[in-house]
Amino acid sequence: MNAKPNYLADIQATTDVVVFTIEDKTLKVLLVQRDEEPFINHLSLPGGFLHKREKSSEAALRVLKDKAKVRNVFSEQLYTFDDPKRDPRGQIITVAYFALVPANKLLSVRLAKNTAIQSVKETKGLAFDHDEILNYAVKRMRTKLGYSNVAYSLLPKLFTLSQLQEVYEVILGHPVDKRNFRKKIMSLGIIEPTNQKLTGQKHRPALLYKFKKHSYTELEEPIF
Amino acid sequence: MNAKPNYLADIQATTDVVVFTIEDKTLKVLLVQRDEEPFINHLSLPGGFLHKREKSSEAALRVLKDKAKVRNVFSEQLYTFDDPKRDPRGQIITVAYFALVPANKLLSVRLAKNTAIQSVKETKGLAFDHDEILNYAVKRMRTKLGYSNVAYSLLPKLFTLSQLQEVYEVILGHPVDKRNFRKKIMSLGIIEPTNQKLTGQKHRPALLYKFKKHSYTELEEPIF
Repeated sequence: MNAKPNYLADIQATTDVVVFTIEDKTLKVLLVQRDEEPFINHLSLPGGFLHKREKSSEAALRVLKDKAKVRNVFSEQLYTFDDPKRDPRGQIITVAYFALVPANKLLSVRLAKNTAIQSVKETKGLAFDHDEILNYAVKRMRTKLGYSNVAYSLLPKLFTLSQLQEVYEVILGHPVDKRNFRKKIMSLGIIEPTNQKLTGQKHRPALLYKFKKHSYTELEEPIF
Repeated sequence: MNAKPNYLADIQATTDVVVFTIEDKTLKVLLVQRDEEPFINHLSLPGGFLHKREKSSEAALRVLKDKAKVRNVFSEQLYTFDDPKRDPRGQIITVAYFALVPANKLLSVRLAKNTAIQSVKETKGLAFDHDEILNYAVKRMRTKLGYSNVAYSLLPKLFTLSQLQEVYEVILGHPVDKRNFRKKIMSLGIIEPTNQKLTGQKHRPALLYKFKKHSYTELEEPIF
């Protein structure tokens, strides 16, 4: 590139990823403790600088692989945060993503030092503008749940209808009527029963279901 | 900033704005002809490089003011396009916005040299990845129309119900039932009648309406 005029910004770009999971009937987020300035020792969203010849979506997958140790989960661009004051090091814009991960895929990262998986409700005081990014992601995910099959990415491959309902209740933040929920979900045709049952619980064995597609699909009519 | 490692991208950031309007019952977009390489003489979305200490939302307002000659219209961040191959000059990411402008506000820019306001359907072969950005914006706008009052930003201050219906039909790309549409719109409580009528038309004078709010508001229930 030619020398650029002085009024143009000197930019660096990062990607930060909001990794959601559900555990103990609670919406949780993966956080990492920063080991350098700025915001040393603060919790932050996992992220990193954009590499040469890399798209932000590729950077997000890299962050998911390196910092959350997961692959093949739903992730999507959320929003770009670019307040020039958001990072004391300079004009650093972040293309934020969010991802949905079943809790059983986070077992290995849970053991990592400097990593926390904590309740979204109890999370504040994150580094940079990461509180704002997290809030934005919660809203987007709530909306998305209503018009897509995206819950597939929060559940194990096989799940009961109670587990599916729990995902909806936890994200929406309120109970849903069991009968209406089941009727609606079945009418959408996005899940199907298997011939297996969940046993070893205190209740009677419950039929296990699976999503027909393990890729993001928008529904023809909204769920609520 | 300290010298950065060699594998990190050298980034520049731009903002491109998809400026939609409706005219002759057609969805149109504002385009500018490029006067320099790359893509010299090609049509492109209006845009520009991010300035020092500027947010992308401020850059978008600057582009709207300088290149579309409009202020106080609805604009919103659309998506960040960052394929490293999208710009031959280097790794230039663009934070794209879209804006909705009533046709009567585009009178002055229409006279400007190197500016076109043309049918979205007939638009292709734009510079860079602007075809892709335009397509993305059309989809977003269509969705948005269904759950917000955003049509306010495509209409003059006072309008007839026929004009409002036309906005919906043009964006959705199909006719809507007049009676159901009127019932639905009135039940949402987002517009109200004035005591003025549109005269001088070949039909009998039609009552003029206005939006209660000239700021973006999401509806409690979707329109369709």
